[in-house]
Amino acid sequence: MKHHVADRMRGISSFYVMELLQRAKELERQGRDIVHMEIGEPDFATPPLVLEAGNRFLSKGEVKYTAAAGLPELRSAVAEYYRTQYGVSLDPRRVFITPGASGAFLLAFAASLNPGERVLMADPCYPCNDNFVRLFDAGTHFVPVGADTAYQLNAELIRRHWRPGCKGALIASPSNPTGTLVCAADLQAAVAAVSALGGCFYSDEIYHGLVYGDPAASALQFSDQVFVINSFSKFFGMTGWRVGWLVVPEDFVDAVEKLAQNIFIATPTHSQYAALASFDPENMAELNRRRDEFAARRDFLYDSLLRLGFKIACKPHGAFYIYADCSAFCDDSFEFAKSLLETEGVAVTPGKDFGAHRANYHIRFAYTASIDRMAAALTRLERFICR
Amino acid sequence: MKHHVADRMRGISSFYVMELLQRAKELERQGRDIVHMEIGEPDFATPPLVLEAGNRFLSKGEVKYTAAAGLPELRSAVAEYYRTQYGVSLDPRRVFITPGASGAFLLAFAASLNPGERVLMADPCYPCNDNFVRLFDAGTHFVPVGADTAYQLNAELIRRHWRPGCKGALIASPSNPTGTLVCAADLQAAVAAVSALGGCFYSDEIYHGLVYGDPAASALQFSDQVFVINSFSKFFGMTGWRVGWLVVPEDFVDAVEKLAQNIFIATPTHSQYAALASFDPENMAELNRRRDEFAARRDFLYDSLLRLGFKIACKPHGAFYIYADCSAFCDDSFEFAKSLLETEGVAVTPGKDFGAHRANYHIRFAYTASIDRMAAALTRLERFICR
Repeated sequence: MKHHVADRMRGISSFYVMELLQRAKELERQGRDIVHMEIGEPDFATPPLVLEAGNRFLSKGEVKYTAAAGLPELRSAVAEYYRTQYGVSLDPRRVFITPGASGAFLLAFAASLNPGERVLMADPCYPCNDNFVRLFDAGTHFVPVGADTAYQLNAELIRRHWRPGCKGALIASPSNPTGTLVCAADLQAAVAAVSALGGCFYSDEIYHGLVYGDPAASALQFSDQVFVINSFSKFFGMTGWRVGWLVVPEDFVDAVEKLAQNIFIATPTHSQYAALASFDPENMAELNRRRDEFAARRDFLYDSLLRLGFKIACKPHGAFYIYADCSAFCDDSFEFAKSLLETEGVAVTPGKDFGAHRANYHIRFAYTASIDRMAAALTRLERFICR
Repeated sequence: MKHHVADRMRGISSFYVMELLQRAKELERQGRDIVHMEIGEPDFATPPLVLEAGNRFLSKGEVKYTAAAGLPELRSAVAEYYRTQYGVSLDPRRVFITPGASGAFLLAFAASLNPGERVLMADPCYPCNDNFVRLFDAGTHFVPVGADTAYQLNAELIRRHWRPGCKGALIASPSNPTGTLVCAADLQAAVAAVSALGGCFYSDEIYHGLVYGDPAASALQFSDQVFVINSFSKFFGMTGWRVGWLVVPEDFVDAVEKLAQNIFIATPTHSQYAALASFDPENMAELNRRRDEFAARRDFLYDSLLRLGFKIACKPHGAFYIYADCSAFCDDSFEFAKSLLETEGVAVTPGKDFGAHRANYHIRFAYTASIDRMAAALTRLERFICR
């Protein structure tokens, strides 16, 4: 009795970087020193106040299910955060606490996409987004983007690529892998364009807060009919805790509540109580210090890569990635990444993990390592490209 | 710009008990004393050793992502548990750690079901199972079951109800809501029947360990081509931590690994480290003491309900539920439940949450409350039915 996996699995891809990660771990077991610039996870520990809140909650021992939509206090705290950060008034009923941003994408797409429908996304973009769409037997219409639009979709591209069967468009600002932002005016125009086309707007805002200049705009500033995905993982430094959130249009509240009841039961309780401490002013001050450290790393890495001959068409203003053009050194960035790891012990992510458009000429560097560690990596990288 | 929710949402239902729960909370806010016998969550706190392990891990502050498939030590510990408990040898690669059993169902069905395919399930059964199938635009073929088969599917029923387009069958033993088990011989025959039909066998074993008599058999004892869903929530007492697991056939390992990377990133890290302590002999002894307490409650509630005139066709041997026939008192168990809550402050779950087959004549009582609290509830229940 051998079974066939479901058809949708043929289109769902693994990440190429996993091969590199596995090899990096092997090399580490052999005693090699590896600098990890492939990992999309901040290297900071959980902020102390959040950790304390988690421990305080655990000390009671009563780790029971919360309501499926999340702890009411946390939903309210998130709504209040939109008021103070973005000047947006938001009914907490529209806020769903989820197991990471992953859970938020799952709810948003399950509740809105029919099989065969399509979502517009930029190429390059974060690969899971397309795979979430495929999970529900829908598809992605990739729009190749470049430096002229800061590697982002905009209203004009959305209108030009919209086809019958399109259900919506997704914009991630700041973007993974490029770290670029959509400015407020462009985001507003994109939201309006999707609205005029009768589509759903999915705004991936998981890197909000990690912005090195004017803060990012939220799609909620321009419409209450958008899906906004966010998370406590990146700016708030709570990756392994698995807490995120989804804001939905009022008309989706009942559907998403039913879905959450059925597919999660609830988000981890101790993680939700810990996340509550995130909005404490003392914690926010600590997070802003960390953001400043990321900004310094960005500057260091950006300058160093340019000096070495990488091309970076758009200086990234957010997240913790630089998407560098390595065409001066190779025409297959995956092979480049594999060889760099073997020869010099520096791990990076190949462009093909993020799409097809000029992917072979790009490498994503994550500055989730300290400046000292990155300096070591850059010395090795220089030796590698001058070999 | 108003959007339509996805078509699949029309078929995904909320739980009727949610209405009762909400009302119960309102009454509590008004100062009423409510006995909760509707909740499928053990009333015990997290076991001390597990809590300690969670706290110990958190004290380091490094709550980073684990591998998508789970902490290697925990996958190995689960595999070892199958060796000691069931005499089954299991490659840890086939064990995936998931955010609760919910995550396990999500992976199993996403990886195996195509749109339009059907899964056989007993009616009554746990309602989320059907909703998970609908999430992937597949469907459930419900088979009405009664006391003659201990409210379970068996090989004969599976063969009789199998149709073109059927992809598999799901058996939950012990069952929610009936608490009944499938004996080893019947489980073996059912696994063989599904295999002969070329289908997938999904074995929901989340109440294993909470069995008051001979231990439940695992489908893995009879085939390595089955999907087994289990969890640290029920027997292991870790509901709010959200950790479960899925065992898959070898041919599904790669597909499920890709899915886990994409749709979860990882199961909460602190929860996985805490769960590792579950298999400590001292913890297992504590869990077995709790199981004995559940057995005493089962006996108390079973005898009391029979004395009051409820009919219980099959004495439940597992989980923490009694599915009682209330036809002596009403022909609409949802109205009965609502009225019982309003009048006497006792919350129970109506049969219609678990299917259609004679649902209006059934009530599910959960013995997740102490014997003292249940005694109070039964006094009120007696007054209610004699009113």
